[in-house]
Amino acid sequence: MGSGGFSFTVLGGVPGGPRWGRLVTPHGEVDTPAFMPVGTQAAVKALDPAEVAAAGTRMVLCNTYHLFLRPGPEVVAAAGGLHRFMGWPGPILTDSGGFQVMSLRPLSRVEEEGVRFRSHLDGSERMLTPELSVAVQEALGADIIVPLDHCLPYPSDPLALADAAERTLRWAKRSLEARTRGDQAMFAVVQGGHDPALRAEMVRALSTLGFDGYAIGGLMVGESKGLMYRVLEQVAPLLPEGSPRYLMGVGSPDDLVESVVRGMDLFDCVLPTRLARHGTLLTGRGPVVLRNARWAREFGPPDPGCPCPVCGRFSTAYLRHLFKAGEPLGPRLASLHNLYFIQGLMSRLRAALESGGLEALRREVGRVYGPRPGASAATGSERPRQEGFGPRASNLCQESRSGTPGQKRRNADACTHAGSSGW
Amino acid sequence: MGSGGFSFTVLGGVPGGPRWGRLVTPHGEVDTPAFMPVGTQAAVKALDPAEVAAAGTRMVLCNTYHLFLRPGPEVVAAAGGLHRFMGWPGPILTDSGGFQVMSLRPLSRVEEEGVRFRSHLDGSERMLTPELSVAVQEALGADIIVPLDHCLPYPSDPLALADAAERTLRWAKRSLEARTRGDQAMFAVVQGGHDPALRAEMVRALSTLGFDGYAIGGLMVGESKGLMYRVLEQVAPLLPEGSPRYLMGVGSPDDLVESVVRGMDLFDCVLPTRLARHGTLLTGRGPVVLRNARWAREFGPPDPGCPCPVCGRFSTAYLRHLFKAGEPLGPRLASLHNLYFIQGLMSRLRAALESGGLEALRREVGRVYGPRPGASAATGSERPRQEGFGPRASNLCQESRSGTPGQKRRNADACTHAGSSGW
Repeated sequence: MGSGGFSFTVLGGVPGGPRWGRLVTPHGEVDTPAFMPVGTQAAVKALDPAEVAAAGTRMVLCNTYHLFLRPGPEVVAAAGGLHRFMGWPGPILTDSGGFQVMSLRPLSRVEEEGVRFRSHLDGSERMLTPELSVAVQEALGADIIVPLDHCLPYPSDPLALADAAERTLRWAKRSLEARTRGDQAMFAVVQGGHDPALRAEMVRALSTLGFDGYAIGGLMVGESKGLMYRVLEQVAPLLPEGSPRYLMGVGSPDDLVESVVRGMDLFDCVLPTRLARHGTLLTGRGPVVLRNARWAREFGPPDPGCPCPVCGRFSTAYLRHLFKAGEPLGPRLASLHNLYFIQGLMSRLRAALESGGLEALRREVGRVYGPRPGASAATGSERPRQEGFGPRASNLCQESRSGTPGQKRRNADACTHAGSSGW
Repeated sequence: MGSGGFSFTVLGGVPGGPRWGRLVTPHGEVDTPAFMPVGTQAAVKALDPAEVAAAGTRMVLCNTYHLFLRPGPEVVAAAGGLHRFMGWPGPILTDSGGFQVMSLRPLSRVEEEGVRFRSHLDGSERMLTPELSVAVQEALGADIIVPLDHCLPYPSDPLALADAAERTLRWAKRSLEARTRGDQAMFAVVQGGHDPALRAEMVRALSTLGFDGYAIGGLMVGESKGLMYRVLEQVAPLLPEGSPRYLMGVGSPDDLVESVVRGMDLFDCVLPTRLARHGTLLTGRGPVVLRNARWAREFGPPDPGCPCPVCGRFSTAYLRHLFKAGEPLGPRLASLHNLYFIQGLMSRLRAALESGGLEALRREVGRVYGPRPGASAATGSERPRQEGFGPRASNLCQESRSGTPGQKRRNADACTHAGSSGW
């Protein structure tokens, strides 16, 4: 099955390493490396699509699981597809729905046929198969779709990891066969946990099948930053050089930079908007926690020099007041600023890749958002939160595996990819 | 004490009846009749000041009670005043804080000195006097300030009404004497319930004192529409012709039209934004309750022909989905649309006053939003909700007088003027 209107061109960089390029989709072009904000339920939380675009966004991600349950793919299709439904004319990627479904455990069970689960909305029993996931994603009509995969938390038993990776491969084959539309690209998901040989085997098998791009799954599931970076270093050189590489669930400033350094092209994460809703601004001088009393009389902009419509008009003290007072304008303005911050970082990364300034930018971001000097990356997840910008190890999706049903429902609502919610 | 930079000109109309004019303030001009959206806590809920202005708003109202408690007038003053703090460069009116305080009963007690109350935030005992209200409003720095008044619910004992009206008069004198700034206008509040003689006496006494404008208080407190309209008909001809007349707490489409017909110039109400947050859109074909299943596949704009940025880009089905899914973009977009609707109505009212088309517009709005034909205005508050756009009789502020302390706190947070929350 072809993928009409879709192409990817590497414009420069190092084979298997950092690079820049251009992704062409039926709904527009995306300069890479690129960050996709998450519009879980067909809306980037609190933001107008015009603002999402103005912040520098070219492509957004939507969650198949959520849209499958509500409003249902038939409603979205009747509206003319996801782009028209949500008022986002640019490229869209939908995930397979598998990640959310599996984070509902023990309300979900993986079988060879697919994943049996109970809806977090009404408790009804459902079965998500690779074929159904493709059918739903075809009805939604995103530019890029993703086959159902089997993702495990960290740490997992090596035999379980191999079993999940091989199932992911079988499901990928079934997904390719299930396609009926010729105008959507399909990215494979590479599983295999932290086992280099298993990852290599998956890359070989999946690239033989011939996908339009390769997503790296099974990271941001509880492992340390150092371990994640090592997997990227090992996998990237094995991936087809001419295909986009999508690292799922990454969005902290330091992880974005370190993953671009390791050859990743695409990212998605709820982090900028979720942090914003909890009152934390990403700024050039580090995170600003608005509820902190030190900002009560800070009448300057939250991030001096930031070109966003928030920093140009409002003070840190005012934003703090909005959060303290529970005003919905607070999360809205904070989300807008954080998205500008992350997209500004992506823009600087693309410029630095072309100009050769990547190492300088890496040092700058590492100084503000990275692990403290002296702490090895491999032990990153053991460090207490106040050292650096915080460990990303534990995450909502893992918590949901041992939480109450009520927590699970909330987590399923909130969660898109593991680790994105680590702080 | 003068009111530098402030003037009001009646440009045309009928003495004591409908008219149009222009209010000049230090922060800009306001064509009247005009509607002020409510920025309770220095923000119109969910909306950016740029959107509030783009919808046609020239002046906003902020609540002294809320800003007194949080963030405190000293913070707002240190920020350079309310205009700079909230990023609203246009005219602002602050109320006295008395209405919110008194709606906290039995947590509040009116004494001759002022109102003793407990903060809904921390339970601390406070005393709001006319002098303190002026001092707080001077620190906030609005263009128009309002003296502390004593408002009673409907129905109230005639002796209690007279007592409250006379206290309001004494407090008005103290407020005038307490002023230290020469660049703020002060509007008197006319109390007197539904007693024509008492209202007339209050108008005479207050206009002798010489205020820059006259607010009509003590309406929208539980009485029927017909009774409110009769009070307006009686009071308006008595008010100084050259001063603006401000009807507090009115904002439903039919009440706005009927009050303009009766000579009112200024209005404020939380209604458009509160209705929006509860998922009801004001449209030319009547209210659209988004949670209603009939809109699930309505892929046209909520209000065909509406020039707002919501109707031009999103469908009723999408807005419904946002509310069903609990997405914060839903209340945001609905608030924006409703504010455009109300400001569009005000713009049409101003044009109709000049062109002589007021009666036609009155019939049009009455048909969609008014009481059903055959129901007399005086019995409006007894009609069940489904007849017409709903009675405005019962309201949050009345409920708060018999509610639990927790409800009271919520009500104090939510409430700005009685009746505005009736449906």
